[in-house]
Amino acid sequence: MSYELWYWPGIPGRGEFVRLTLEAGGIPYIDKARVEGAEAMMRDMAQRRPEPFAPPYLVAGTAVIAQVANILFFLGCEQGLAPAEQAPFVHQVQLTIADLVAEAHDTHHPVAPMRYYEEQKPEAARKAADFRHSRLPKYLGWFERALARSGGDWLTGETWSYADLSLFQLVEGLRYAFPQRMASLARDCPTLLALRDGVADLPELQDYFASDRRLPFTEEGIFRHYPELDGA
Amino acid sequence: MSYELWYWPGIPGRGEFVRLTLEAGGIPYIDKARVEGAEAMMRDMAQRRPEPFAPPYLVAGTAVIAQVANILFFLGCEQGLAPAEQAPFVHQVQLTIADLVAEAHDTHHPVAPMRYYEEQKPEAARKAADFRHSRLPKYLGWFERALARSGGDWLTGETWSYADLSLFQLVEGLRYAFPQRMASLARDCPTLLALRDGVADLPELQDYFASDRRLPFTEEGIFRHYPELDGA
Repeated sequence: MSYELWYWPGIPGRGEFVRLTLEAGGIPYIDKARVEGAEAMMRDMAQRRPEPFAPPYLVAGTAVIAQVANILFFLGCEQGLAPAEQAPFVHQVQLTIADLVAEAHDTHHPVAPMRYYEEQKPEAARKAADFRHSRLPKYLGWFERALARSGGDWLTGETWSYADLSLFQLVEGLRYAFPQRMASLARDCPTLLALRDGVADLPELQDYFASDRRLPFTEEGIFRHYPELDGA
Repeated sequence: MSYELWYWPGIPGRGEFVRLTLEAGGIPYIDKARVEGAEAMMRDMAQRRPEPFAPPYLVAGTAVIAQVANILFFLGCEQGLAPAEQAPFVHQVQLTIADLVAEAHDTHHPVAPMRYYEEQKPEAARKAADFRHSRLPKYLGWFERALARSGGDWLTGETWSYADLSLFQLVEGLRYAFPQRMASLARDCPTLLALRDGVADLPELQDYFASDRRLPFTEEGIFRHYPELDGA
């Protein structure tokens, strides 16, 4: 069975966490909205019962699964992409990644998620300063300690799990959005950054990274580079 | 085996979603921080490897499980509190509840989560207005349709699941924080409000509701009533 992934076609966004797992796992899937467009996705969503609250969602036979961490937990079980005895721990890490992703998004949309960044720049400046100095070090320190616990190169030991792939994407997004702050925090999270390099070098992802299936970050997505929101 | 629940002792907060499930399920547990205090919790957290990112967390034998939705998924499986064939759907609803809880929290802490509300009142006023008019109706409409899909009195049919209990707590919190707005939205979510009443009437929760184990909402928690942030 081939899975169907539905996500906004123009941005990596939250869909990329799912895409990376499908690609690294060698799991057949169709990236539906990139084939059929965003309007087709809106029509598809509207006829689901209940419709997903938001993309991404995965169609697996008759099942429709939304929420990134839920999709990855499902794929982890179905495809053996996380050790069963550590499934709650891997999911816990993934949910903590989701929390940080939401906070990173809110640095440019702190008060009105459906309006433009340009309509909330003063609030964004304040939110981003707090994020850089308080929240980001707290999260990175926690991921660093979670990785240090494993005893192997990956979160759960000798083999990557889906959460390792998500940690890679998280670091990539944070480096794109906050290059100065991530540089100044690098000394505090060497294990996390080594993990990022490990995923970048995975043989099973090289074709994907070289393809146009891998989308670049832009100022339309979750991780946006606004220089005025960064700082060492 | 008795579970240990650890959460800030003075507020219902996120811990209450777990507590309701333990209470309604008749599951033995010790509410550790209410017995031993917040300092004991800080010490306990610090010696876990890795420590939870934040309370609540559940200790189940040698397992330490954090993140509310992760704890409830675990309890749902262990204790049969969600139909196995609908486990991903129930979890998806729980994760969407978690998203709304985070947004409700951010109405009073939009730019600096570790600082006082009084230090971010203008930003909070703008965030709360957006929440009342844009986000809250979107979420409530989605829960309403998710419930309408079931064909029974509960999210998954004839029996309550842990997510039904969480929807009750969500409505209670929103009514406490935004009484005017929840009154004006009542006509749009009759099924959700009927579900709230169904949980309030559950025989298995009456002793709990009458006990001092059930904590009231206050302006120290996630759901806070600041009249200036409400409006019809």
